[in-house]
Amino acid sequence: MAIRTEISTLGEFALIDRLTEKIQLKNASSIKGIGDDAAVILPESGHQTLLTTDLLLEGIHFDLMYVPFKHLGYKSAVVNFSDIYAMNGYPKQLTVSLGISQRFSVEDLEAFYDGLQLACDEHGVDIVGGDTSVSLTGLTISISCMGIAQPDKIAYRNGAKEKDLICVSGDFGAAYLGLQLLEREKRIFDGDSGFKPDFSGKEYLLERQLKPQARRDVIDMLAEKGIVPSAMIDVSDGLSSELLHICKQSKVGCRVYEEHIPIDYQAIAMAEEFNLNPVTAALNGGEDYELLFTVSLALHEQIALMKGIRMIGYITNAASGACMITRDGTETELLAQGWNSLSD
Amino acid sequence: MAIRTEISTLGEFALIDRLTEKIQLKNASSIKGIGDDAAVILPESGHQTLLTTDLLLEGIHFDLMYVPFKHLGYKSAVVNFSDIYAMNGYPKQLTVSLGISQRFSVEDLEAFYDGLQLACDEHGVDIVGGDTSVSLTGLTISISCMGIAQPDKIAYRNGAKEKDLICVSGDFGAAYLGLQLLEREKRIFDGDSGFKPDFSGKEYLLERQLKPQARRDVIDMLAEKGIVPSAMIDVSDGLSSELLHICKQSKVGCRVYEEHIPIDYQAIAMAEEFNLNPVTAALNGGEDYELLFTVSLALHEQIALMKGIRMIGYITNAASGACMITRDGTETELLAQGWNSLSD
Repeated sequence: MAIRTEISTLGEFALIDRLTEKIQLKNASSIKGIGDDAAVILPESGHQTLLTTDLLLEGIHFDLMYVPFKHLGYKSAVVNFSDIYAMNGYPKQLTVSLGISQRFSVEDLEAFYDGLQLACDEHGVDIVGGDTSVSLTGLTISISCMGIAQPDKIAYRNGAKEKDLICVSGDFGAAYLGLQLLEREKRIFDGDSGFKPDFSGKEYLLERQLKPQARRDVIDMLAEKGIVPSAMIDVSDGLSSELLHICKQSKVGCRVYEEHIPIDYQAIAMAEEFNLNPVTAALNGGEDYELLFTVSLALHEQIALMKGIRMIGYITNAASGACMITRDGTETELLAQGWNSLSD
Repeated sequence: MAIRTEISTLGEFALIDRLTEKIQLKNASSIKGIGDDAAVILPESGHQTLLTTDLLLEGIHFDLMYVPFKHLGYKSAVVNFSDIYAMNGYPKQLTVSLGISQRFSVEDLEAFYDGLQLACDEHGVDIVGGDTSVSLTGLTISISCMGIAQPDKIAYRNGAKEKDLICVSGDFGAAYLGLQLLEREKRIFDGDSGFKPDFSGKEYLLERQLKPQARRDVIDMLAEKGIVPSAMIDVSDGLSSELLHICKQSKVGCRVYEEHIPIDYQAIAMAEEFNLNPVTAALNGGEDYELLFTVSLALHEQIALMKGIRMIGYITNAASGACMITRDGTETELLAQGWNSLSD
C-alpha cells in the first residue's frame, strides 16, 4: 500500500523544504532560485524577456478522479511553456504557487513536483520560486513562466498579412475527445465500483489529454530554417477560437480548408462513437497545445518540406471574414466557442 | 443602489476586455502587455531581473465580508511589490490571474482592478498579463511581479554578518490587531444585523490591515545614502519568523531588544483590549510589510539619521542563537510562529 504522510505532520516550512530540496538550477541565467523574497535572473544578452501565467483550478481545469498528480504537474508546466513557444521564444524559469487542502498527502504533492520537474528537465527550465498555502477547498495551481526571445524573431498575434499561409503543427481534437472519454468512464465507474475502464485503441487520446506536449521542436525547426512566422499562437482554447484571435488582432480574415485540418484516426473513431463531427471537435475542442502560425506565401515550398507541419489555409482581407471551406466547397463562418463556463 | 452586472451576461472574452480596456503601459521596458501569449519585456541595461509570486485565497488570506474589492486589489499588488523591495529592487511589471465564481458581479471585479491599478500607479508598475477563469468555490488571486535591481545592490537574506546592526522600518503588530478587530466586529455583526461597528481611534489598525504600504520610500532612502543592506527581507509572516530566516540563511544568531521594537500606540491599546502582549503581537502578528535589514556597524550614525528606521539589535555568531532581550534584561529565544493553518 502507498505511504501516506499527512501534510499536517510537517507544517509550512518543512513541507516547502521537502518539496523543493531536490530542485537544482541548471540555467546560467538563474542566479537565485527558491529561498529569498524573489528569484534573481540574469537577462540574456540581445534578448527580450517573455512572461506568461496560467491558473489551473480543480473541478474546472482538471479532475483528480482521473488525473494523476504527476501528470497534473507535468501538464501545468507544459501549458505555460507552450505560451512561450507561441512567441517564438524559449522558456527558462518558472514559479509555482499551490493552494492545497488537507485532502492531499505529502506524497501527492511530491508526485506533482516530480511531474513539474520532468517537464522542466525536458524543456531546460528552472523552478525558481513559488508560494504554498492552505486552501479551504480544492487544489489551486498557478504557474508563471519567464522565457527569452530575440527581438527580431518574436511572433505576435497581430502580424498576419493578406495572402500569408496558415500553418499548424500536429493534429486537433484528440485532447478534447480524450477528456470526453475519461468523463464517460468516470460516469460508468460512479455507478459500478467494480468497473475497469478499457482504453485500448484510445491511448493517443488519453496521452493528448493527460500528457500534452509543448512544441519546442517546431520552434527549433523554424529557427534552423530561418523562418520567422508573421503571427503565431498556441492552440489551447480550440483551433477556431485561436484563428479568430489572429484575424482580429492582425485585422485580417482567413479561409481554412476542412479537408486540410489534421485529425488523428483515433480522434475520428472516438468522435463517431460519441456521434460528434470530428471536424467540430478539432475546431472547438481545445487543449491541443499545437502551434498555429502564418508565414509569407513565398515560404510555401520550405513549409511543405517541414515534417509534421500542415498548411490549412490562407489569410484574406478583413472584409472577407473568417471562414472554413467545407469538403463540398461551401463557406461556413468560424465561430469562437472558447470558454463558456461562466454563462452556464 | 449599486449597479450589479452578472458575469454570465458577458462571457470570457468580453469580461477580460472590460476589465483590461483601461490598462495602459507606462514603462519603456513594457514592450507588449495583455493580449498575446506572453508579455514582452525589455531587460534594463546593467540590471538583473527579479521575479516573485503570491497566491491569495478567499477564506485563508482574506474575508470578503470586511475586505472591499478595491482594497483587495490594492493589497494583492502591494504584497508582491514588497517582495521586490526586499531584494533592494524596483517592481516594473505584474501579471494577475483570477479564479472567480458567479457570486461576484462585473462591478466587483472592476473594483478589484481599480485597486490593483491604483497600487501599480503609485509604484510605477505595468499590468502586462494574466489569466481569468471560473472557480467552483471562492475567489483565487495569483499575482506575479517582475522587477529590476543592480547586481551589486541586491540584498539577499544570507548576507548578514556578526556585529551587523538589525534595522526595521515602521512599526509592528498593527495589521494583525486590525485583523483581530475586524474578526471581532464580524462575530458581533453575525449575531445582530442592525449592528454598526465603531472603529474610531482604531483607524491606523484598519489601514495597516486593509491597505498596507510597500516601503519603496525606504529603498529610495537607502539608495540616496548609498547604503546596501548586508541582508534584507520583508515582514509578511511576523518579525520573529523573518529574523529567523535571516539568521538561518546567513548562518548567524541575533539579539533584539524588546524596548526597541516599534509598536504604534493604537496597537498597544488594542492589544490590551484583547488581553494580548503587544510585543507578542509585534513579533508574531505578520502582514506588516515593513522591511527588516542588516547593515555594517560602521553605518550606525547614518542609520540613526534615517527617518522612520529603528535599530532593534545586532547580529551574533550562530552558536549564540536568536534571542530577544526583554526589558528586565533576560534573554528569551525567538520562535517562528509563521503559518500553522495546515496543522490546525
